[in-house]
This record gives sequence, C-alpha cells and structure tokens, in this order.
Amino acid sequence: MPSPVPDGGTRGWIIPIGGGEEKENNPQILKRFVELCGGDQADIVILPTASRLADTGARYERIFSGLGAARVEAVDFDTRRDCDEKSRLQRIAQATGIFMTGGNQLRLSTIIGGTAVAKLIRQRNAEGVPVAGTSAGASFISEHMIAFGEEGPTPIAGSVRLAPGLGLTNRFIIDQHFRERDRIGRLLTALAFNPFAVGIGLDEDTAAFIGPDNTLEVEGSGGITVVDAKGIEFSSMDLVEEGQPVCMLGLTLHLLVAGATFNLSTRQASAGELARAKG
Amino acid sequence: MPSPVPDGGTRGWIIPIGGGEEKENNPQILKRFVELCGGDQADIVILPTASRLADTGARYERIFSGLGAARVEAVDFDTRRDCDEKSRLQRIAQATGIFMTGGNQLRLSTIIGGTAVAKLIRQRNAEGVPVAGTSAGASFISEHMIAFGEEGPTPIAGSVRLAPGLGLTNRFIIDQHFRERDRIGRLLTALAFNPFAVGIGLDEDTAAFIGPDNTLEVEGSGGITVVDAKGIEFSSMDLVEEGQPVCMLGLTLHLLVAGATFNLSTRQASAGELARAKG
Repeated sequence: MPSPVPDGGTRGWIIPIGGGEEKENNPQILKRFVELCGGDQADIVILPTASRLADTGARYERIFSGLGAARVEAVDFDTRRDCDEKSRLQRIAQATGIFMTGGNQLRLSTIIGGTAVAKLIRQRNAEGVPVAGTSAGASFISEHMIAFGEEGPTPIAGSVRLAPGLGLTNRFIIDQHFRERDRIGRLLTALAFNPFAVGIGLDEDTAAFIGPDNTLEVEGSGGITVVDAKGIEFSSMDLVEEGQPVCMLGLTLHLLVAGATFNLSTRQASAGELARAKG
Repeated sequence: MPSPVPDGGTRGWIIPIGGGEEKENNPQILKRFVELCGGDQADIVILPTASRLADTGARYERIFSGLGAARVEAVDFDTRRDCDEKSRLQRIAQATGIFMTGGNQLRLSTIIGGTAVAKLIRQRNAEGVPVAGTSAGASFISEHMIAFGEEGPTPIAGSVRLAPGLGLTNRFIIDQHFRERDRIGRLLTALAFNPFAVGIGLDEDTAAFIGPDNTLEVEGSGGITVVDAKGIEFSSMDLVEEGQPVCMLGLTLHLLVAGATFNLSTRQASAGELARAKG
C-alpha cells in the first residue's frame, strides 16, 4: 500500500510512460518530468535496474542533463544487497525526482521488492517527489503489476500473470507498449479477477501524468486506453478454464489522447482542451 | 437498407462467423446453421465469390452434405454479368439457406453489390431464409462494411476504410479474425464516425447467431467483443488528422462467450446460461 502522505503535504506525481518515449526531437514527456522535478533545480536519480544494457543509465543521464536538470545520477541496484547500501539510499533521499527505466519488470520486483529502496521510493513519493517509470518501469509502479502475458484483444483465462509491484498506488493496473504489442486482452483479463482497479493501457511515446488529486493527464503522441470495470454486470472468471475466453459484461471504455483527462477517484473522463477545440 | 419483411413473416437469421470455423471435429457453428436451414430438408446455396481458390465452394458442399443437408450447391458469381443469369438466381430463389465463404470482401461488394443477386439475398432473408457469412463473408453482411484497415488496439484516424455492404441490417459493423489479427482499434475507429451502429468483433471459430428478434447468441470456441457507442460522451474524430489517435469517451464494452447474449434492439447484454452456471 502507498506510504501515508505527511500532514499538510501532497503526494508527488506518479508518471507511468508506455515506453519508446521521444528522446531527441521535442521530448515532451521527459521535459515535463524534469519541470515537475524542479527544472534547473532538479536532482534526478535514475534506476536502470530493469535493464540489462550497460549504458541505459548513462543514456538517461545525458538526456535529463540536456533538458536542464541541475543534477542527474544513475544509481545501480543490481542485487538485493545493493538495496541496503547507505550511500545509494542517500542519493534517493536527496532526489527531487526518481525515474525507472525499461527492461524487465521482474528484475525490478525481484531485486527491489521488499527492500529499503522500495520503501524509500514510496516514502519520497508520499512526501511530494515525482516518480516516473517507462515500459517495465511503468508496469512496476502500481500495487498490482502485470508480470507477463499473451497478446490479443479478447480476454483469455490464464493469459496474464499478476505480481505485487512497487505500490505507489493500488488504483490502477498498467500495461505498456499497448497499441504496438496488442495487449488489451491481457489487461481485461487482469481486471476480470477483481474489477476494483482501473486498467490503463499506455501506447508508446505516451505518458499518464497522475497528479496529487488523482487526475490523470495524457502527454505524448499516442493514446491511453482506460478500462473501468466499476459498472461490470457479470464476469465468468471464476467459471472458466485456462485458455478459455472470459465473459465480461458492462465495462466502460475511454480512449484518451493529449488534452483529455481521467479522474481516478471519481472515475470521470473529460475531453478537457479537446472539447474547447471543438467549440 | 434491409428489404421489408412481408406481413405476418419474420426475418431469417443473420449469422456472421469470425473465420476459421471448425469444419471436422464438432463443427457446432456449421451444424447449427444447417439445422436453421431445415436440417435434413435443407437446401443450401454457397456463394464462393469472395474466394479466389477454385475448391472453396466444393469444400463447403462436402461439409454441408456431411452435416445432413438435403441439397447443397456452390453457385459461382465471378462477374457482374453472372449476377443477372436466371438459372443462378433461380437457385437462390429456391434455397432455404445462403452461405458466403471467406476471401476478400471487396470481391463480394464489387461483383455482387447493386446486382439482382444482392437484392434477392436481401429479399430471401426478409422472407425468413437464414444467411451466413464467414470471414470476408461476415464483413459483407451489414450495410456498413469494413473494407480494409490497420491493426492495433487504439483508434487511429485513417486506420479503417468503410464501404457499403450487402445491407441485411444496418445495426452493426462486423470485424472478423478479431483476436487473431488484433482489430479492436479499427473497429473503434469505424464507430468514431457515427456511434449509431454497434461494433461486433468476432474471434475465429466464433459466430453471432442473430435471430429475428435481434438477439445475438454466441456460438463457438472464442469470444465476441461488443462495443456500444450509444452512451459516448465525446469523439474527436472531426478534429484529428490522418494517423493521429482518436479520443472517444464513454463507450460500453462487453466480452461475450457461448451462452451469453446481446440484444441489438435494446442493447442489453445478458450472461444467459453462464449466470445460471454461476448459480
């Protein structure tokens, strides 16, 4: 569960990104993240844990420095022992922004899960520090994480495996590379277990900027698919066998693009600026 | 538009099939079709027009004969001139069931569209004769046909092209091979133009048996995705440029499997037998 927000404080922004975010020409998602972290006062810590590539951390160091952040450092947590090291924890304790790269979300959950690092990130977010994650980093953000699954638009029993994630929130389940890897079926399957959470499918180069008031704003060039199961009339998830399609009646579906919003507390979608453009 | 139903009569069943229907072991979809056509009294005409393969018609002749139909005949309509030939029209006028094979729906619309054959099929269906189509044959059934489009789960302006279809009904837009070819985005895009119709995505080996009362029953091993845009709160289709994602808020989504139903008049989904199984 999320850390408690201190009295008088507000939780920091939570920013899952669908992967493949633009890094050179008009990198609007990463730019907005740097601004939320303090712009030219920003002190950003990058966690490249999900990635197996040696240069992932260094690459984001260059990008965030290029976007004007005052201080940027990739901090490696490659073993659970690393996660107890005081100097590395100290960097997170000082940061004004935390960014988790892509790779494999099971590396994040198996290495960081249940350690002092996970606890500290939750605590810093509760104190107001923005936390972003792209691709695998986005999947890891929520309490309920899609560990792996199959492709395709219809929900199939057994097509998705959930695991505990970082737990900055439990209001949603994230899936990423959404359009590019055809993942609506596995997101629906995840919701079929328990319609409590909202399903959020992020296209590449698209981010959900979720403010302290739980309003989700879309940034980037793609779409965000929101599946709200609050009004669900029927789910056959308890009846079906592995490999069989699941029956789910009465879901609400929103396709959001930049300018539109979704409030995770009230579950209201709004066209925002788009409605004004329409006049 | 559909032909008028004669006084005191009822329209025949309309049966779009998602393609890849089981033909040998337990071919439940084709078996139910033969039963609706009269079982051992059935006289089925097969239209292999969509297919470029020489043996498509003969293959279905063997299948329907094997399922006990009294008379089965594939009738070729390969040119628009064929569509005026009296002997071929006569076969359709006698049939108790009409079946359109898969292939390319643009062959059906360009060869049969606007001919005496199209008119006769609509008329026979209005008089009570069941009409089924698989894959391309399913897409052709409705007034609004998906001619072609792109893959992926989020709606993109320009990702789908509609064309006039056979027009047995205008209540829905069909897409087929739905899970297998990742087509929810193009179905959503089709609905974004005008939320009037219901979007129906058919998985392979899955059919919508739509009765004279407009109740859709699911048959087969896969799922049917129903997207109902009646409650849509916002669509940005009029604002976006080709290649841009479309914003659509407030859609209703149902995932149906065998046993569940959807009424195209009232737009109510029901778990049917599945709810009884749940107790």
